[in-house]
Amino acid sequence: MVGEFEIIEKYFAPLAGPEGLSLIDDAALFNPPEGMSLVLTKDISVSGVHFPLNTAAEAIGWRSLAVNLSDLAAKGAKPLGYLLGLGLTGREDAQWLADFSSGLKKAQLFGRCTLFGGDTVRTGERLTVSITAIGTVPVGKFVTRSGAQPGDVIYITGTMGDAALGLACIKGTLKSDDQLISRFTYPQPRVAMAPLLRLYASAAVDISDGLLADAGHIAVCSNVALKIDKARLPLSKGAHTILAKYPDEWPQIWSGGDDYELLCCVRAASVPAFEAKVKETGISCTSVGRVVAGAGVYLYDGDGLQIDTEKQGFQHF
Amino acid sequence: MVGEFEIIEKYFAPLAGPEGLSLIDDAALFNPPEGMSLVLTKDISVSGVHFPLNTAAEAIGWRSLAVNLSDLAAKGAKPLGYLLGLGLTGREDAQWLADFSSGLKKAQLFGRCTLFGGDTVRTGERLTVSITAIGTVPVGKFVTRSGAQPGDVIYITGTMGDAALGLACIKGTLKSDDQLISRFTYPQPRVAMAPLLRLYASAAVDISDGLLADAGHIAVCSNVALKIDKARLPLSKGAHTILAKYPDEWPQIWSGGDDYELLCCVRAASVPAFEAKVKETGISCTSVGRVVAGAGVYLYDGDGLQIDTEKQGFQHF
Repeated sequence: MVGEFEIIEKYFAPLAGPEGLSLIDDAALFNPPEGMSLVLTKDISVSGVHFPLNTAAEAIGWRSLAVNLSDLAAKGAKPLGYLLGLGLTGREDAQWLADFSSGLKKAQLFGRCTLFGGDTVRTGERLTVSITAIGTVPVGKFVTRSGAQPGDVIYITGTMGDAALGLACIKGTLKSDDQLISRFTYPQPRVAMAPLLRLYASAAVDISDGLLADAGHIAVCSNVALKIDKARLPLSKGAHTILAKYPDEWPQIWSGGDDYELLCCVRAASVPAFEAKVKETGISCTSVGRVVAGAGVYLYDGDGLQIDTEKQGFQHF
Repeated sequence: MVGEFEIIEKYFAPLAGPEGLSLIDDAALFNPPEGMSLVLTKDISVSGVHFPLNTAAEAIGWRSLAVNLSDLAAKGAKPLGYLLGLGLTGREDAQWLADFSSGLKKAQLFGRCTLFGGDTVRTGERLTVSITAIGTVPVGKFVTRSGAQPGDVIYITGTMGDAALGLACIKGTLKSDDQLISRFTYPQPRVAMAPLLRLYASAAVDISDGLLADAGHIAVCSNVALKIDKARLPLSKGAHTILAKYPDEWPQIWSGGDDYELLCCVRAASVPAFEAKVKETGISCTSVGRVVAGAGVYLYDGDGLQIDTEKQGFQHF
């Protein structure tokens, strides 16, 4: 196996921004931009827990950073940099490292951030990627989970459930569909939504543990209830095809994890302006329900009947 | 096993500062103090790699944060907060979690910082603690590894080799010595040295991989050579006793890892002021050699003869 210092010099130093001090100093240094608050988030990805053991190295690199960029986007934050904690099993060769760093590079170009530093260690049987991402928001503009109010409209970016269906494809329990698989292995963090959330969202969350579970965070933190219409849930073509054939897969749409889409609440008065601005981003964004007084998250069918959603969410843990 | 959200609420939320937003928001938010640069560092500790499998939970908590505080101290940075990435194996019970968070709490009180956030996941066989620590230095006062010049005096805090000897005690290859063992399990980051390094050090590094290996970083980055006198190396009583009986253990003093002491270089003209200020901290600090023109790190015995230090360092990796 390649040594720690060689790995850093060959594969990671080219990803570093000036804050990384060429990755020779065991620390990053930067001057925070004036008038900005810093947002920090951390997500760990473990092989065999957060992604299948046979996931391609490039996808692991992309995904590990992308899930952190998704967290920043939900806060309305602009990515700045990240620290990479990499626990290698000893089975990763030069090609693996090249592919992994290529995935990281694509994700950091997508998010317009650079590598600040990190630590590379030997771990046990499971490859572990622990990323701390740093972003900025103008002071006072951090988007919380606690500002939703009755009357707000609930929006969701992209389509729901694809990643969970894609994972089922990878595991072979559903017929393979490249689009759905790609939704699991290459989640697209909604970085471009961050400025709009800062302007228009009363509350936001990224959907990593399933729509209902993450909507539940907003319900709890904002002390409100969220009513979501099943008929309005945005579905991909691949999901449509599967659901037509296997209607039992429907709960994946609202309980499946790993979509890394955003859910946000918007005051009714802001809806026209929000929708106009969203169009400019090219990101699809669908109104799926309303915030009401009460507690909890409720899913309704087209006839206004509440759906029993026993399987309330997804926890990696 | 206890669930993720319960763990966070019960054990980690009490460690959080206001920046952690009660750990319910998946992100930390803070306004960097004006006129300060931020220093970020990341160190991962893996059970069975960085500490023995049977290490007490409290020691793991202390140690995992302490090694990051040591990195900050070497840069002259004052600790501000940290993000905790915790990979649990599933064998950790409530008592383990209480002890682990107690160790973290002691270390954060020692370093005067608080928990900003993090991620708790299920990992494989090896407990993994990935910490990102954040500190501040006044703009332009970051202490690098690259400023040493010929003529500078080389200082070392504390005593050398204790942690490696302590680890040998734990492993049973040396007779047990509580003091030495404690030097491995509860390293004392030299937080109080940070302001002095900012004022007086031309270069500094924390000694985590062994004296010669870490001195080597300064030699390379500063493009100088470091001459160190074996006779001046500060030794603990426990180390003295072992070396008197087993002189073959001497290389542990300059090649053993995990001491988390600081090495710094000070211009000859600043020596009196530096030594006076160090006394006020109560931390022992010993001059052990000189920076000279050239490249590499050289160890000399009392007669000025160069010692062959084949075993040049220690790598966890």
